[in-house]
Amino acid sequence: MSELHLLSPKGFRAGGAYAGIKTRKVNDVGVLACDTLATAAAAFTTNKVFAAPIAVGRQHAADGKLRGLVINSGNANACTGKRGLQDANEMCALAAAQLKCKPADILPGSTGIIGHHLPMAKVRRGIVEASQNLGNSSEHSIAFNDAILTTDTRRKFAAARLKLGKQTITLTGICKGAGMIGPRLALAQARRSGGVKPQGRHATMLAYILTDAQVSAPALRKLLQPAVNKSFNSVTIDDHTSTNDTAVLLASGASSGKINTIAAAKAFLEALTELCQSLAQQIAADGEGATKVVRIDVTRAKTDRDADLISRSIANSPLVKCAMHGNDPNWGRIVSAAGMCGASFDPDRATLTLQGVEVFRRGQPVPFDPATVSELLAAKEVVVKLDCGHGKSSHTLWTCDLSKEYVTINADYHT
Amino acid sequence: MSELHLLSPKGFRAGGAYAGIKTRKVNDVGVLACDTLATAAAAFTTNKVFAAPIAVGRQHAADGKLRGLVINSGNANACTGKRGLQDANEMCALAAAQLKCKPADILPGSTGIIGHHLPMAKVRRGIVEASQNLGNSSEHSIAFNDAILTTDTRRKFAAARLKLGKQTITLTGICKGAGMIGPRLALAQARRSGGVKPQGRHATMLAYILTDAQVSAPALRKLLQPAVNKSFNSVTIDDHTSTNDTAVLLASGASSGKINTIAAAKAFLEALTELCQSLAQQIAADGEGATKVVRIDVTRAKTDRDADLISRSIANSPLVKCAMHGNDPNWGRIVSAAGMCGASFDPDRATLTLQGVEVFRRGQPVPFDPATVSELLAAKEVVVKLDCGHGKSSHTLWTCDLSKEYVTINADYHT
Repeated sequence: MSELHLLSPKGFRAGGAYAGIKTRKVNDVGVLACDTLATAAAAFTTNKVFAAPIAVGRQHAADGKLRGLVINSGNANACTGKRGLQDANEMCALAAAQLKCKPADILPGSTGIIGHHLPMAKVRRGIVEASQNLGNSSEHSIAFNDAILTTDTRRKFAAARLKLGKQTITLTGICKGAGMIGPRLALAQARRSGGVKPQGRHATMLAYILTDAQVSAPALRKLLQPAVNKSFNSVTIDDHTSTNDTAVLLASGASSGKINTIAAAKAFLEALTELCQSLAQQIAADGEGATKVVRIDVTRAKTDRDADLISRSIANSPLVKCAMHGNDPNWGRIVSAAGMCGASFDPDRATLTLQGVEVFRRGQPVPFDPATVSELLAAKEVVVKLDCGHGKSSHTLWTCDLSKEYVTINADYHT
Repeated sequence: MSELHLLSPKGFRAGGAYAGIKTRKVNDVGVLACDTLATAAAAFTTNKVFAAPIAVGRQHAADGKLRGLVINSGNANACTGKRGLQDANEMCALAAAQLKCKPADILPGSTGIIGHHLPMAKVRRGIVEASQNLGNSSEHSIAFNDAILTTDTRRKFAAARLKLGKQTITLTGICKGAGMIGPRLALAQARRSGGVKPQGRHATMLAYILTDAQVSAPALRKLLQPAVNKSFNSVTIDDHTSTNDTAVLLASGASSGKINTIAAAKAFLEALTELCQSLAQQIAADGEGATKVVRIDVTRAKTDRDADLISRSIANSPLVKCAMHGNDPNWGRIVSAAGMCGASFDPDRATLTLQGVEVFRRGQPVPFDPATVSELLAAKEVVVKLDCGHGKSSHTLWTCDLSKEYVTINADYHT
């Protein structure tokens, strides 16, 4: 599927422009349009401190219909009060004028420096320019993709093709995110406007997923939340939930593939979940200062909540993250992280493997050669598997190691 | 009170010895004895993965009576199975033989490398030697104090004198702890034995507090938990709860001061809490790689639980800790940490001050000179105060900054 790109699903066009918001000369405004009114589902940050485009986006996505997206990077339009809300609404109005639709059919998104008003002269120019060069080639995909990146060191893309009977539908997605990553996304009804948001550089997670399937808005909503839970809500870099986190799923309906049976919905959900998980993994791999992805597999926990708590406690322990950075098979930090999080956990029932090597079994250390396991931990992808031996619940979480570079990136910045 | 030392309260003697458990030639075995049976209260880690001396200690402290303490550093006696329990029990028996009391009247404590059996030949020699040079001078205090230190860069001591009517009582305490610090201590009844514990270097929190007041064991229990909650349970370096965390309070009753009225109990609790808070602060200041203490004051939260959640969310955010390290007045990270933790929080009611400078007020950024605030943040003690404007609950938490040195310390160690 190497030939697939964001705009491979039928019915979408996109464009990007460099408007001068970012200092680095890379596109910073993007517009994405569906040829007709798409069905849509969107999940937003649950941080009680949320940005202006989140407040506007919640309202615009509430009816499950969208014609397009308008996004900018280099400025999060957060901590910007009433003018921020006006600006987010104006972005929608400008894109709507170009696409000849209602402003309420446009979903806005912003990421970048916060605590500053958007430079609207530049944004206006950027929206017009991006709208005037819409297309559906791979170059157009890249032009839009670049417009959502900030501290990311690379683009993140995933795709799937799915046979529904004789029809083939296509799913594609892009995302951004490198720091301030601990998303807790939830689908939401429209809420009252969002007040003022925090200041300072941060790195929101944004994910835009497209499909050409025919699928109703209620079905899309039902499919997005479980996929998000097993992917974006299961990636943590620093467990800091951003003010701007957003994941959007648009269905153009331009293919003949219909999600109108339980079997089709199941197949679609599976493909969507895998796609989102690939994006989540790419976020972890591009984590600020990260040298590796660490996958935490917790199995046989007593309850789903226990599996979730245990995996997060391990993934967010700075001691575990540092050990992973140093290729140190320090399993005591992992087992004690499981024991400290309030979940049901009995070390006498638990078994821990690092990269497939058993190091702890039912409360007893298993003799192993530290040098061998340390070498295995030097991989780009590390799997930590904790079998709790306690029940039937499992959870998988992606994280990364904690390096000096993370400290450099986040301590050396001055507001 | 500069003349006070750990053994200033009447009725206690202590000694230390170098038995060769630690490679650095500093005392690693300590014995502390009360002349008579002391009333006692002890709080232990709530980690479900707990060490052998915790399992034994819970049983020995359950009746509220202790004659003494036997401790070692350099080896945590954790992840040591049944033999570990035997060893912890033998340590008590050896000390009891020296002090001519029952083994069940001795509380054991261990800290250091884990996943290894105690070198009992050395430990035995150390206990005999430490017991044979008991005394109550400041040199004896230091000899015992040094025997609990591992990665600590300095001793930690606090003391108070309290007038109860015409009588004066004395309270003193020492503690250790530098990493793997996120204590969640609770007083406990005896439990079944503890199985096997994690391997690898770690740095438990141990606190030993002495008083010569006359106070009943039930009263002591009631006093210790609230003092611990506002001190040791309110310090976090990496939010990683150790397997060996312990705080013990021994009352010799050797003074004429009695805690037998509500007023006396209140005065005692206040002094005890302040003493424990001083020790907790000293732990934060000596945190691995720390360059400063950061005090998080959350006020006017909706509930006690909200105040606790918000202060911990701020203190444990790597982004906040890195900003503190870089003297960066990045208040967005602080406000968003408050918004993401699940507590009731409304940015439109909140006010944030950094070192006394208001930077955010009721949802609006307050203009300030970043250079000036950055200079203020370069202090050894930084105060972050978040007024939630929402209720009546408050919580104070001590933490430290996150530096590259923390990563070096914790990534470069190999099991």
